[in-house]
Amino acid sequence: MTAVSALRPTGPEAVAEYVDGLARRAREVGRVLGRAETAAKNRALLAIAHELEQSAALLIDENRKDLEAGAAMGLERAQLERLGVDAKRVQAMAAGLREIAALPDPVGEISGLTYRPSGIQVGRMRVPLGVIGIIYESRPNVTADAAGLCLKSGNACILRGGSEAIHSNRAIAACIRQGLEAGGLPADAVQLIETTDRAAVGALLAADEYVDIIVPRGGRSLIERVVAESRIPVIKHLDGICHVYIDDGADPVKARRIAINAKTQRYGVCNAMETLLVAAGIAPAILPELAALYRGEGVELRGCPETCRLVPDCVPATDVDWDTEYLAPILAVRVVAGLDEAIEHIHRHGSGHTDAIVTEDYGRARRFLREVDSASVMVNASTRFADGFEYGLGAEIGISTDKLHARGPVGLEGLTTQKFIVLGDGHVRT
Amino acid sequence: MTAVSALRPTGPEAVAEYVDGLARRAREVGRVLGRAETAAKNRALLAIAHELEQSAALLIDENRKDLEAGAAMGLERAQLERLGVDAKRVQAMAAGLREIAALPDPVGEISGLTYRPSGIQVGRMRVPLGVIGIIYESRPNVTADAAGLCLKSGNACILRGGSEAIHSNRAIAACIRQGLEAGGLPADAVQLIETTDRAAVGALLAADEYVDIIVPRGGRSLIERVVAESRIPVIKHLDGICHVYIDDGADPVKARRIAINAKTQRYGVCNAMETLLVAAGIAPAILPELAALYRGEGVELRGCPETCRLVPDCVPATDVDWDTEYLAPILAVRVVAGLDEAIEHIHRHGSGHTDAIVTEDYGRARRFLREVDSASVMVNASTRFADGFEYGLGAEIGISTDKLHARGPVGLEGLTTQKFIVLGDGHVRT
Repeated sequence: MTAVSALRPTGPEAVAEYVDGLARRAREVGRVLGRAETAAKNRALLAIAHELEQSAALLIDENRKDLEAGAAMGLERAQLERLGVDAKRVQAMAAGLREIAALPDPVGEISGLTYRPSGIQVGRMRVPLGVIGIIYESRPNVTADAAGLCLKSGNACILRGGSEAIHSNRAIAACIRQGLEAGGLPADAVQLIETTDRAAVGALLAADEYVDIIVPRGGRSLIERVVAESRIPVIKHLDGICHVYIDDGADPVKARRIAINAKTQRYGVCNAMETLLVAAGIAPAILPELAALYRGEGVELRGCPETCRLVPDCVPATDVDWDTEYLAPILAVRVVAGLDEAIEHIHRHGSGHTDAIVTEDYGRARRFLREVDSASVMVNASTRFADGFEYGLGAEIGISTDKLHARGPVGLEGLTTQKFIVLGDGHVRT
Repeated sequence: MTAVSALRPTGPEAVAEYVDGLARRAREVGRVLGRAETAAKNRALLAIAHELEQSAALLIDENRKDLEAGAAMGLERAQLERLGVDAKRVQAMAAGLREIAALPDPVGEISGLTYRPSGIQVGRMRVPLGVIGIIYESRPNVTADAAGLCLKSGNACILRGGSEAIHSNRAIAACIRQGLEAGGLPADAVQLIETTDRAAVGALLAADEYVDIIVPRGGRSLIERVVAESRIPVIKHLDGICHVYIDDGADPVKARRIAINAKTQRYGVCNAMETLLVAAGIAPAILPELAALYRGEGVELRGCPETCRLVPDCVPATDVDWDTEYLAPILAVRVVAGLDEAIEHIHRHGSGHTDAIVTEDYGRARRFLREVDSASVMVNASTRFADGFEYGLGAEIGISTDKLHARGPVGLEGLTTQKFIVLGDGHVRT
């Protein structure tokens, strides 16, 4: 890795020049990748998986440097846990790449090709975006996952990981380069920003001549910085303030299953429920029982006055609760008059991520699906299903809470675009 | 129109407050429009068409004020021509709205709904974006066209026309309001910015809390300003530097038809050819004859050295010519070695709008389609086909040269997005 080390500049100007060089190179290499055959991309993905497995001991050694530095810097236990790479995680990275290799190639897919009255055929062809910049925090496995998705979708990528994971990321990136070469693709298809200088992020966000899209993966402060600074479109995910609304006449068994699963199956995830809405007509029958179940799981309830009346040990909710993504065993609970008030609450307080209704009423299910303006809208299913794998997209690069281009879980398709193709036989416009 | 006149503020703060109020109102009304039934939207479109026809005399009177002010301001003849509204143009606006009413409603369309191994069904539902801001220049008919497309796609819109068309736009907007009310939809579904204060554009571009997308329609300086200032995503169209590449062994009859049509059918349009590329093998056989035809049409040729050798009266091209959108009877011509050089030229000098190959070779047609990274890529068809109507999209709000969200002609579908829908029956994640 000596040659690579020589490439690590510091200072704003040197860093800007370095990142600009990476971006320009990515633009060139992206064209090669865009026309690469599916078999070549799959070969490279499998070769990278193999390299990672072969280099497991080295990866774990390099990761130890990051863990030691992180501990010395006073990282919290949860942060160190995210940063860690062990044999199992190496295995998981390799398995993830093999799964991506097994997914259908989205590039070149032609759809909707039909004859027009003029005689031409018009359709659309799916094509790569070109160059993708990914900015992420501690988890080193993102280096392999993101590289795999970009590669399969025919995009060159530039990866900027957290400085606390730099040794791990460099080692993983070296495996990726070797795998790309073994697969007959340009090693620069995946370029890691090798410097930990913070100026590199700004330089990447300014490279709008070469980079087509930026995907930030991390906490709110990272994403807000990227959105504020970027001159390049961003696929972003802000909060996941997900709701479950239990409708009048809902099946109590389904309501219980979904309300418990959506909150307690995992707490720290964006598709966990943060607010439970219950129709006034069913609240007395269902809320006390649900409260007991939540108590058994150690979930703290923060309720509206009506909830507190029905569940005496409930903490009164304040206005802030309706707008909070707890990511913890805490749940806001509100009794609403019915569907209209539930939709209104979600409109006001939701984050456009995932919202579900539990109902047996056909008309209200139909209205909820149409009128709730979130990336995922569900009937009688747990919000925890909002996930690329569960949706059949394969791996996901993130979950978008934006409306444009990609909405909800973003898999290979979200890293591509469609161009029009026109086939004629000497046709001209008259 | 007295009530409306009272709403015309001036000065940056008053204008900002006014535009912010419109945007907030649009966000509310957008929700009503998003769930409006297809029949209600179509009724409103037909009612607006009827209002325009009934008000033709008034519209022409109001337009006369704009024309007189424009002439006094020294607008050029072509500008006055674009600004003018006569009985025929009123008829065309009404006919356009009736065509939009006849198009299928994209909103609510569910696609790809399939069962997953977990038992849930996952699919996508097409939904409106919400609020669309449209910033345009002189043509008053855009007021009706854009309003119609936004209405049918379930979006509220805010229209900011050119100050030189303000009387015409106000009169058209009044007809739209009456038609919306007659159709039973909120009159504020389409709001015209009534002030000509330039600060209104900046205020609209800053209203990212309420406005989902901005569509600028006009010249390069308008679009560049919008892109530079906007905090909202923009569907934009920059240059149309379109190429036709005549391949070795192309059918000379098709090549001639397409090369002449793409350049001469209309000059001032974005999908007209600006550069002709000719394979060296076929150039001696085809270029002199083509040059004679262009000469007959009054088209000036600017050629590379090889072109000038084959066409002695050709003007030598300079580097600038390859990057120029003439929008005029001028054509840059270059002889290239073959397909690779043609693709490379298009990559370097094209604007990602529309590019065509004329070929009888299957493999080269296939490569051109895949490797040319433009919004429309054509085989044996004139670039002039790049158009919403020709593609079967119905009316278009513009032609996007961006890659994200909407690429190429943007019709109703480009004004919508897709959310995921999940149907279960008590399903939870394990």
